[in-house]
Amino acid sequence: MNPVLFIQAKRDGLAHGEEELRAFLMGYLGGEVPDYQVSAWLMAVFFRGMTEEETLALTRVMAHSGKVLDLSHLPHPVDKHSSGGVGDKTTLVVAPILAAAGCTVAKMSGRGLAHTGGTIDKLESIPGFRAELSEEEFLRLAERVGLVIAGQSPALAPLDGKLYALRDVTATVESLPLIASSIMSKKLAAGARTIVLDVKVGRGAFMKTREEARALARTMVAIGRGAGRRVRAVLSRMDAPLGRAVGNAIEVREALRTLRGEGPQDLSALALRLAEEALEAEGLPPALARKALESGAALEKFRAFLEAQGGDPRVVEDPDLLPLAPQVAEVRAEEAGEVAEVDAYRVGLAVLALGGGRRKKGEAIDHGVGVEVLKKPGERVERGEPLFRVYHRQKGLEEATLYLKNALRLGPAEGGELVLEVVV
Amino acid sequence: MNPVLFIQAKRDGLAHGEEELRAFLMGYLGGEVPDYQVSAWLMAVFFRGMTEEETLALTRVMAHSGKVLDLSHLPHPVDKHSSGGVGDKTTLVVAPILAAAGCTVAKMSGRGLAHTGGTIDKLESIPGFRAELSEEEFLRLAERVGLVIAGQSPALAPLDGKLYALRDVTATVESLPLIASSIMSKKLAAGARTIVLDVKVGRGAFMKTREEARALARTMVAIGRGAGRRVRAVLSRMDAPLGRAVGNAIEVREALRTLRGEGPQDLSALALRLAEEALEAEGLPPALARKALESGAALEKFRAFLEAQGGDPRVVEDPDLLPLAPQVAEVRAEEAGEVAEVDAYRVGLAVLALGGGRRKKGEAIDHGVGVEVLKKPGERVERGEPLFRVYHRQKGLEEATLYLKNALRLGPAEGGELVLEVVV
Repeated sequence: MNPVLFIQAKRDGLAHGEEELRAFLMGYLGGEVPDYQVSAWLMAVFFRGMTEEETLALTRVMAHSGKVLDLSHLPHPVDKHSSGGVGDKTTLVVAPILAAAGCTVAKMSGRGLAHTGGTIDKLESIPGFRAELSEEEFLRLAERVGLVIAGQSPALAPLDGKLYALRDVTATVESLPLIASSIMSKKLAAGARTIVLDVKVGRGAFMKTREEARALARTMVAIGRGAGRRVRAVLSRMDAPLGRAVGNAIEVREALRTLRGEGPQDLSALALRLAEEALEAEGLPPALARKALESGAALEKFRAFLEAQGGDPRVVEDPDLLPLAPQVAEVRAEEAGEVAEVDAYRVGLAVLALGGGRRKKGEAIDHGVGVEVLKKPGERVERGEPLFRVYHRQKGLEEATLYLKNALRLGPAEGGELVLEVVV
Repeated sequence: MNPVLFIQAKRDGLAHGEEELRAFLMGYLGGEVPDYQVSAWLMAVFFRGMTEEETLALTRVMAHSGKVLDLSHLPHPVDKHSSGGVGDKTTLVVAPILAAAGCTVAKMSGRGLAHTGGTIDKLESIPGFRAELSEEEFLRLAERVGLVIAGQSPALAPLDGKLYALRDVTATVESLPLIASSIMSKKLAAGARTIVLDVKVGRGAFMKTREEARALARTMVAIGRGAGRRVRAVLSRMDAPLGRAVGNAIEVREALRTLRGEGPQDLSALALRLAEEALEAEGLPPALARKALESGAALEKFRAFLEAQGGDPRVVEDPDLLPLAPQVAEVRAEEAGEVAEVDAYRVGLAVLALGGGRRKKGEAIDHGVGVEVLKKPGERVERGEPLFRVYHRQKGLEEATLYLKNALRLGPAEGGELVLEVVV
C-alpha cells in the first residue's frame, strides 16, 4: 500500500477496497502512516464521499481496530445512541425502561462538548457514581444488573478515537460517511444485537435539516444491517431543548421525575418510542416499555444500576442530594404572546457559559449549574413572566442571560410531531 | 487566526485574504501550525481552487517567506524558467545568449527528479563546476560576468520548499494555483525584472494538454504582472525530447554545439525565441539574440561563466573532457517507415534506468550515461537502422532498452510548430 497513491485514488473519486482501507488506517493507528497523510485523505473523503460498501468497510476496520465485546450470551442485548442535543437526557429514561423490560443494556457513552451535554457528565453529578469500569466489571454488571453505562473505553475502536481527534482539528468532521462510520464502529465494537438510534434534527442538533438527518440515518442503518445487527433510527426534532431542564444534575432530576411518571410529555414520549422500537426489533412486545415505566420497574432498575456503579441510590427518593448551584436568576418576558421558538443551540451555549459544559476536551465542569426552560413552544406568556430559571454561581451569568434573551421568539408556534419518522 | 476555521473557509469555497494566508502559512514555516492542518488545507485547495487575487497573495507570502534578492541595480535583469521536460537543455543556450546580448542572467535552478533532468545536474557534469554559491558570490558573479547559475538557495522562499515537500507526499501536487505560486514565488524572490517562462505541453511534460498549459501560463503571467514584473510565457511542445541528447554531460555537449551554431534546429529555434521574448520585454531589440549566437559572443559568455564558477573552460573547445559512459548500445528499427512519435516520457525513463536521473531526492546520479535520439518525428527509417544510441555502464541497460523500444512509433508524423503560442 502506497499512501500517496491511496490518497490520490480518493482525490480522483475512486472507491477504496477494504484491504487497502485497513492497511492505510491501521498503519495510521500503528504510527507508520503519518497524520499529515491521513488528514489530506480525510479532506478528499469530505469532497468525494464514499460508497455504501466503502462506508461499511471503513466501519468494520474501525470496529475491529481494538477489542470487540461479545454480549451474545446475554438476554436481548440492545444499545442506544443519540446524535446529541441540548437537554437530551433520554438515555437516562430509555435504558432503565429497556432493562426493566428484560433487555440487557450495556452501553458506553460520551462526555459533552461545546453546547451539547453528555450522558456520562450527567451521571457523574450523582455522588459516588463511577463511569470508568474495567471490561470485566462492565460485563459482570451487564449480566448481574442488566444495565450498565460506562465511559467510552479506549480499548474499543481506538482507531475511531484517533481519527476523530484528527478530524476535529482539520475541519473534516462534517462528512456523512465519516460521521456514520464513527458512530457505528463504536456500536459494533460494543457488541449489542439491536441498536436504536435517535437522530436529532433542527437548530439544536448536528443535523440541521430533515434531509441530512435522513441520509445519516439511512447510512447508519445500512452499516448496521451489513454487519448483521438490527438497527432502527428515529428522527426526532431538536428545535427546542428536550424536556425543561438543561445542565447536568438538573437533567438527572428531570429524568427521575420522568421515571416516576411525572416528567415532561416530550421526554417520556420519545423515551417510550425509542424503547418500543428496540423491543420490537428484539421480537418482544413493544407494550412492555410502557408497562416497565408505569409499574415503577424502570425506576427500580435505575436504583439498582446506581448502586452497582457506586452512585448514591438515595437520590432516587431524595433528588435534593444532587448538587444545585445556590444562586437563582430569572429571565423574564419583555412582552406577551405565544412562544414560537426556544432556540436549543442558544440555551446550550448559556449552560456552557455558566460552566456546565466544556469548551475543550478534558475541562472540568460544574454539575450544579443549569437552565430551566419555563416556557416552551405553543405556550402562552405574559409580560414580566419568567421564561427561564438560571441556577448559577455568578460565573458567566451575564453571557448566559444574553443567550437566553435571544433564544426565545414570540409568534405562532409551528407545532408538529416530535418524532418525524423511523428509518428501518 | 484559527487554523480550523481557516481550513473550513477554503473547504466551503471561500477565498482567503492575504493576512490570514500569511498567518496560517508563516505559522507552518515557524512550526506553530502543524503539518496535518496544512495538508488538509492543501487538499481543500486542490478541490476548491483559488481566485487570481488569492493565488497572487499566496505567491507573495511564499516569495517573502525568506530572503528577497534585489537585482535592480544591474542592467536588464532577466530570469528564465522551464516547466521541465526531457532533454531540455534550453537554459544552457538561452542564458549565455541573453547575457551576451546585454542582460543580467542571475538564475537559480533545480535538480532533476524522476524522468526529467535538471539544469544543475547537467552543469555539474562539467569538471570543477560549483553550483552552491553564497549570496554574496551569486550577486558578485551576476555583476561581474552577467551570467550566474546556482542551485536553489534554501534562504529564498523557504515556505515554498516546505510546502512542496508536503504536497509531494499528500497527493496535492497537481493543483494549478499551487503549481503556479510555487514557480513564481521562487522567481519573485530571485529578483529579476523580466521573467520568461517556457511551459512545456505534451507527453513528456507535466502539462499534457494545451488547455492546461495555457491556464498555467496565464496564471503565472497574472501573478508576475501583479507583482510588478514583466512576464512572457512560451507554450512549446514536448512530445519528442528536445534536441537529440538526453542525459547530463551528453546534453552539455549538445548545448555547446548549439552555441557554436551546429546544434539541432528545434533547440536553437526555441532558445532564440525565448531570448527574443525576454529582450523585447526589456525593451531591447530582439535581433540581438541571433547576433549574440551567430557572432560567437554567447559561446564566449558561456566560457566566462564556467570559469567563474570553477568549471573547466576547456570543455568549450574539447567536449571530450566531459564524462561519457564507455559502453555503447544501439536500439535498431524492426521495420521501415516514417517516425510518427518519439515518446519523451519513455526516453526519460530509459535515462533514469541507466542511472542518469534520480528516483528520490538526494540520490547520486551518473553524469556520463545518456541516450542519443537518432531518429525524430518526420524522419525516415530503414529496417535495421539504429534509432537510439545508448551510453551506459551496464546498469539498467535491459530496462532502458525496453523503454526505448516502446518509445518509438512509426506512421505519418503530425508535424506542427514547436512553439504553440505566447501568453503575455
